[in-house]
Amino acid sequence: MNEMSMESSVRDVLRRMRASCTMTLALATALIEEVEAEASRMGVKAVVAVSDAAGRPVAIHCMDGSYIGSFDVALNKTYTSVAFQMSTARLAELAAPGGSLYGIQNTNEGKIVIFGGGEPLMLDDVMIGAIGVSGGTAEQDTRLGAYGKNKLKDVIAWK
Amino acid sequence: MNEMSMESSVRDVLRRMRASCTMTLALATALIEEVEAEASRMGVKAVVAVSDAAGRPVAIHCMDGSYIGSFDVALNKTYTSVAFQMSTARLAELAAPGGSLYGIQNTNEGKIVIFGGGEPLMLDDVMIGAIGVSGGTAEQDTRLGAYGKNKLKDVIAWK
Amino acid sequence: MNEMSMESSVRDVLRRMRASCTMTLALATALIEEVEAEASRMGVKAVVAVSDAAGRPVAIHCMDGSYIGSFDVALNKTYTSVAFQMSTARLAELAAPGGSLYGIQNTNEGKIVIFGGGEPLMLDDVMIGAIGVSGGTAEQDTRLGAYGKNKLKDVIAWK
Amino acid sequence: MNEMSMESSVRDVLRRMRASCTMTLALATALIEEVEAEASRMGVKAVVAVSDAAGRPVAIHCMDGSYIGSFDVALNKTYTSVAFQMSTARLAELAAPGGSLYGIQNTNEGKIVIFGGGEPLMLDDVMIGAIGVSGGTAEQDTRLGAYGKNKLKDVIAWK
Repeated sequence: MNEMSMESSVRDVLRRMRASCTMTLALATALIEEVEAEASRMGVKAVVAVSDAAGRPVAIHCMDGSYIGSFDVALNKTYTSVAFQMSTARLAELAAPGGSLYGIQNTNEGKIVIFGGGEPLMLDDVMIGAIGVSGGTAEQDTRLGAYGKNKLKDVIAWK
Repeated sequence: MNEMSMESSVRDVLRRMRASCTMTLALATALIEEVEAEASRMGVKAVVAVSDAAGRPVAIHCMDGSYIGSFDVALNKTYTSVAFQMSTARLAELAAPGGSLYGIQNTNEGKIVIFGGGEPLMLDDVMIGAIGVSGGTAEQDTRLGAYGKNKLKDVIAWK
Repeated sequence: MNEMSMESSVRDVLRRMRASCTMTLALATALIEEVEAEASRMGVKAVVAVSDAAGRPVAIHCMDGSYIGSFDVALNKTYTSVAFQMSTARLAELAAPGGSLYGIQNTNEGKIVIFGGGEPLMLDDVMIGAIGVSGGTAEQDTRLGAYGKNKLKDVIAWK
Repeated sequence: MNEMSMESSVRDVLRRMRASCTMTLALATALIEEVEAEASRMGVKAVVAVSDAAGRPVAIHCMDGSYIGSFDVALNKTYTSVAFQMSTARLAELAAPGGSLYGIQNTNEGKIVIFGGGEPLMLDDVMIGAIGVSGGTAEQDTRLGAYGKNKLKDVIAWK
C-alpha cells in the first residue's frame, strides 16, 4: 500500500468514524420519527427531542395534540440525560427523598427532570447525545425513551 | 340535495378548512425542510423553527454546524412574529432608537427578537403560526424567513 | 523594644494574618489541584470549585470527561457551604423530609445544594471560603470535599 | 507497510488529532495562566475563563482583587464567542444601534455579551472553544482576549 492510498484510506476511516460518532440532524430526525411512530401505535401524543453530546438541542417535534408543557420537559430530559450521563428514570431513584442525590432537581437552573423519558444515546460506550420524550404517563415516556435509545443502531445502519 | 348528502358536504368542507387552517407537525416539518434546502443552496447553516398560532413551538431543526446561539433566536423569532403579528424585520424598524416601539425588546421575558428572520404564516388573512430562521447574516435570515412564508401554500397543496 | 521595631513587628503579624486568612487565586488553584489528584486516584472525573468567604467564586476546574451538570452543582456547593457555614452533607440531614430545615433547597434562587461535596474552609475558627466537588457519587463527592478541607493547612504551609 | 503497522499509524494519527483538536483542562489552565501573566504586566486584575466548543465551561480563574461582576461577564463572553462563532468585539459592531444584529444582546437568556474580551479559539479553521476576559477597560479586555487567542498554538506546542 503506497502513501497516497494509505492517506485515502485513513481519510475514509475518519469520515466514517465522524459520521457514526456525532449526532447529526439527519440522525436526530430519523430517530424522532421512529419514536413518533411507536407513540402513535401506543396512542400517545408526545414531544420528542434529541440533543447532542454537549446537551445542545438538535431537533424537536411536537406531535399534534401534545401537551404545551411537554416541550420544556422533553428538551430538559435530553439535557438531564447528557448532564449526568444517565437516564432520567435512574436519576429519579437517586433523587427521591432519602436518595443520595435528593435535591439535585433544584440545581442547573431548573433544567433537571427526575422522571423517566430521557435516555443517553450510546454508541460503543461513547455518548453521542440524548433523547427526551414527554406527553404520556411517566411509564409511557420511559418506555418511549428506551425505545428510541434501542433504535439508535438500526437508524444508523439504515442511513 | 338530501339532508344526508348536505351534512356530508358540510363535514367535508369543515374538515378541509380545519386541515388547511391549523399548524400541524407534518406541515411544520415539510416547511422546515423546504427552508433547509434553500439554506443549503445559499451555503447557510440555519436553525429553522415553526410555531403555531399561539406561539407554541411545533418543530425545530438545527442544521449540522449551525450556531449554538441560533436555537434560542430562531425559536423566539417565531414567538415574536406571533406575539405581534408582524415579521421581525418590520418590528426591527419600529424598535430602533427613535422608533415608536423602541424598548419592546425588553418585554416578554427576553423573547422578543428585533432583526429579520421571523415571519407570521398567513393563510387567507388567518395567521396559522410563524416561522423563525437564524444562522446566517440578518439579510440571509430575513430572506430565508420570507422564503418559508412564501412556500406555505405550495407545501399545503402538495400534502 | 522601641516604637519603630514594635510597629514593624505588628505590621509583620498583620501581614501574615491577612495572608493566611484570605482566599487567594494561588491558594484556590493549589487546593483544587490537590483534590484533582485525589479524584484521579479514585477514578472520579470531578468539577472542583473554590469560593471566598463571601461565597464569590475564585477558581473552577472541570476535569476532562466530567459531567456537564457538575459545573453548576460544584459551584453552588461552595455557595451553600459559605451561605450557611456548614458542609452540604450536614445540610442534607437538616433539609431531608421531616428535618428542621426541610425546604431550604427552594431558597436563594436555586443555589442551595443538599448533598455532600461542599465544605467550608476553616482556618483557626475563621471561615476563609469553601470548596465544592461534583462528579462522583454523593459519597465520593463528600469524601473529596473533606479531602480538600483537610488539605488546606498543608497547602498554605507549602506556599 | 503491513496492516498491523498501518493500523498502529492510524491510531497514532487519530490520537494526536484528538489531542490537538479538543479543549482539555490542561490546555485551558495553561492558556489562562498566560493571560493572567499578561494581565499582571498590564496592571489589570482580570477574570479569565475558557469554555469548550459547545460553550460549556472548562476552567475559570479570578485574579486577586478582580471585580465580583466580572465572573459572569468573562464566562458569558466565552458563551457568546462560541454561540455565534465570532469575537465579542465583532459582535459589538453588529449589535450597535443601526447594526444588522441590534437587539441580539436580549437573546439567549442574558448570556450574550457585546463588548470586547471574548474570542473563539481556532485551530486550523476548527473552533475548539473560546476564551473570555473581564476586569479591565473594554480595550484592555479585548487586548487580553486577543492575547489568549494568539497564544493558543504556543501553549499546545509546549505541552
